[in-house]
Amino acid sequence: MDKTISLEKLAEMVDGEIVGDASVEVSGFGPLDSAGPRDISFVVNPRYVGQVPGSGAAAFLIKDDIELTGPTVVKVGNPYLASAIIQNYFLEKPFVAQGIHDSAVIGEGCTIDEDISIGRNAVIGNRVTLGTRVAIAAGVVVGDDVVIGDDTSIRANATIEYGCELGSGVTIHANTVIGSDGYGYATDKKGNHVKRPQLGTVRIGDDVEIGSNCSIDRAAFGVTWIKSGVKIDNLVQIGHNSVIGENSLLVSQVGISGSVTLGRNVVFGGKAGAAGHQHIGDGTMVAGGSGVHGDHPAGSQLAGSPAFNAKLWFRAASLFSKLPELYKDVRRIKKELATLTKGTEPDSNKG
Amino acid sequence: MDKTISLEKLAEMVDGEIVGDASVEVSGFGPLDSAGPRDISFVVNPRYVGQVPGSGAAAFLIKDDIELTGPTVVKVGNPYLASAIIQNYFLEKPFVAQGIHDSAVIGEGCTIDEDISIGRNAVIGNRVTLGTRVAIAAGVVVGDDVVIGDDTSIRANATIEYGCELGSGVTIHANTVIGSDGYGYATDKKGNHVKRPQLGTVRIGDDVEIGSNCSIDRAAFGVTWIKSGVKIDNLVQIGHNSVIGENSLLVSQVGISGSVTLGRNVVFGGKAGAAGHQHIGDGTMVAGGSGVHGDHPAGSQLAGSPAFNAKLWFRAASLFSKLPELYKDVRRIKKELATLTKGTEPDSNKG
Amino acid sequence: MDKTISLEKLAEMVDGEIVGDASVEVSGFGPLDSAGPRDISFVVNPRYVGQVPGSGAAAFLIKDDIELTGPTVVKVGNPYLASAIIQNYFLEKPFVAQGIHDSAVIGEGCTIDEDISIGRNAVIGNRVTLGTRVAIAAGVVVGDDVVIGDDTSIRANATIEYGCELGSGVTIHANTVIGSDGYGYATDKKGNHVKRPQLGTVRIGDDVEIGSNCSIDRAAFGVTWIKSGVKIDNLVQIGHNSVIGENSLLVSQVGISGSVTLGRNVVFGGKAGAAGHQHIGDGTMVAGGSGVHGDHPAGSQLAGSPAFNAKLWFRAASLFSKLPELYKDVRRIKKELATLTKGTEPDSNKG
Repeated sequence: MDKTISLEKLAEMVDGEIVGDASVEVSGFGPLDSAGPRDISFVVNPRYVGQVPGSGAAAFLIKDDIELTGPTVVKVGNPYLASAIIQNYFLEKPFVAQGIHDSAVIGEGCTIDEDISIGRNAVIGNRVTLGTRVAIAAGVVVGDDVVIGDDTSIRANATIEYGCELGSGVTIHANTVIGSDGYGYATDKKGNHVKRPQLGTVRIGDDVEIGSNCSIDRAAFGVTWIKSGVKIDNLVQIGHNSVIGENSLLVSQVGISGSVTLGRNVVFGGKAGAAGHQHIGDGTMVAGGSGVHGDHPAGSQLAGSPAFNAKLWFRAASLFSKLPELYKDVRRIKKELATLTKGTEPDSNKG
Repeated sequence: MDKTISLEKLAEMVDGEIVGDASVEVSGFGPLDSAGPRDISFVVNPRYVGQVPGSGAAAFLIKDDIELTGPTVVKVGNPYLASAIIQNYFLEKPFVAQGIHDSAVIGEGCTIDEDISIGRNAVIGNRVTLGTRVAIAAGVVVGDDVVIGDDTSIRANATIEYGCELGSGVTIHANTVIGSDGYGYATDKKGNHVKRPQLGTVRIGDDVEIGSNCSIDRAAFGVTWIKSGVKIDNLVQIGHNSVIGENSLLVSQVGISGSVTLGRNVVFGGKAGAAGHQHIGDGTMVAGGSGVHGDHPAGSQLAGSPAFNAKLWFRAASLFSKLPELYKDVRRIKKELATLTKGTEPDSNKG
Repeated sequence: MDKTISLEKLAEMVDGEIVGDASVEVSGFGPLDSAGPRDISFVVNPRYVGQVPGSGAAAFLIKDDIELTGPTVVKVGNPYLASAIIQNYFLEKPFVAQGIHDSAVIGEGCTIDEDISIGRNAVIGNRVTLGTRVAIAAGVVVGDDVVIGDDTSIRANATIEYGCELGSGVTIHANTVIGSDGYGYATDKKGNHVKRPQLGTVRIGDDVEIGSNCSIDRAAFGVTWIKSGVKIDNLVQIGHNSVIGENSLLVSQVGISGSVTLGRNVVFGGKAGAAGHQHIGDGTMVAGGSGVHGDHPAGSQLAGSPAFNAKLWFRAASLFSKLPELYKDVRRIKKELATLTKGTEPDSNKG
């Protein structure tokens, strides 16, 4: 944490505007009440402006619509984003290659960069290619013919099955499986299931993060493809031949069936699912717990199961508790109406 | 892929009928546009019949109701099934025993066939029995007293807990756990939970396939039983003492509670669940995402939560979006009816 | 199983009342039909009282409202709880330290009690502290700076990430991950997601049990906290910074998002979920499959998604199948009412 940066450079990094002394130097990031004279702090909400004078920070990162005069500030449009960038800058540590631990087992014909860490009891198959600054944690199993790009980290006890390709800057968390067989069978007349060969692999782009205990199946033919920038939470399932578009977010326990195509920046809330063989357009948002069927155009906002327009679903869902009342009302109405109809029948109008 | 087979034998294998020269020999299987003169190709849909003359294939597997004259064909009732059988035939490789890797650790008193592969850093407990052509991948842990039948394959980092029995031709995918403790507690007056002993094991029949990251719990007493021919997808949970009937299919993220009995050829769609202590009859189909409560007879088709008749559920679900409209209608009707009732009251008929 | 205990001591253990000879000694526990003269058996339901005379058991554990004269009995309020306590007593085996297996790899600067078992190919990081009678199974990976209390057991292939703290008497089942990174990103204008640092850890109290294939994420700052006595089933997800109150029960496939606080003795049924940043009060019960949003006071009973009062939800859910009928009724009512309104309009009353 001995990094020091001038506000000028820091403002550049976060696309911010300095009000005050651009030559001030900071070497850390902290909350208002604990930041010291070498730290930059942050004010996201006008409520906290009153705490600024009492803070020991050297400067303040603030949302650009907050009024704050006196101290040196860096105004930004998205202080959450700016905070993440600044924190990452200060926390970033240079990669320290720890080499291949004696207890790791390496197969034949591998191409492994020297600048690497392979942990205790990790297993690397045959003909594996590992880029520079790759970190393979303890107990990981990497299958034959796997290719892993630079700066990628595989956490403990994860399994990368044979033939899969991972890009650069990827993180795979503990006990996740990349490349288990897809689920595909043809059933004979007796009800026995004959497995369809699963001959493809998994391709993972750059800067992808996949949580712990996920299952990403290999394709029947070709690839199951997780494109660059995708972030996947824990316990997520991706079926064979699916394609997850750039920068999509899949929250915990999401399930994507086989042959589903997701566009860019699609978001699936926790526990949501997508049935097989459908296309979901760019920027679609799916509420947690929903079940999506059929194709949906870009920008859809979906909820429910089968999912439809999210706004409409939330309105319908808010009325679900009134179903018993509604049911009673309709029964009463039917009775009243029956009485009434009797009363307005031609012959009853005689009088 | 140097296997060669005559159409005569191939037709026998897939229960097909040859129209043309039964002595033609093929050694591969491929799609219409890339199949060569030693390949058999396939036509599932009449739409593609037009592409047949341009295809280089030696013969064609076709659905028996498609008209196709000219080339040699093998007519079958289920071309998907026939394709799977033929592909598996051509792809099948003889088992090559790789022996026990130096880094694997084998316990005492084991009975291990010579024709076997035990991978890098795999761990085999004490008194384990492994049949012929068993393949234990890298990082797998097999507990004490486990019995594994012939031709069974356990993929990387899976855990088979002590005392479990696996049949022949079983595949367990990476990071799956067979035989974790069942979830059972008795609660005292202070709200503390006392664990009930989980003394049973898991029994898995023949030709079962279980995906990655699944949890199959051991029984409290006796066995949790996955019967022969069952195919389980990824991230599936099976509770203690449950019995999954022959050839049942459990799609990804399904959860079966404790003491549930499923008949033969039951299908649970993705994310569906079954509450505890129930019996679900043969051939029951449960739609994805449903929650089944109570017993259901053979041949049930279920959806929803709690699940009921699937057709009815789909109709009800399709109307869920109309709930706000319905609610408004009923409110308006109530008002109109109030006015009307007033208008038809005896004294208002005076005029 | 050579333990022997007098009924007097046994009754003390289960808070029971002896009717008969308190000096009788038993050394086992079994069902009515197989218990022998040194066993105690149990009668939970009056239906089984008739089988008592034919049973060979020395004494009987019975629910305190069951009438049973003749044999020696121990009356208890909760025979399930008493059974669990007695079974555990007879089954309990003293811990046998097996030491550190030759194939295990231990880091530097660790503090490891002598009375310990570390299994085959297990990996212990640097500066790890392991209490007395800790059992680390084969293939487990324990990260740097982890602290594990006395009598804690980690089953095969589980991963305990760096810096996490586990209490005493904890059991972590196979392939579970404690301390994977929390899921948190800030998104820039181009839609790229910048990771927020996940600097905290996971703290697990005493007597916690966590099933197989679970993912418990580390906090962004501070701790994700699983308090003492919590019991978690398989395939459960706990997000960063969440706090699970004492003795809470989370059934299989539950998902708790980030920054959720659960009180004491909360129960989440299978597949239920909680959205982020909410507080759920002591003793709240959530039905399986529900999705909880917002805060809920102690003692809430919730079902549905978004969840509301469980009783009301069950009533509403039981009417869901009647939605098509209801919809038809309302359409017919609207028509009838239209006719009727016409019929009662002033000018139609002319006749």
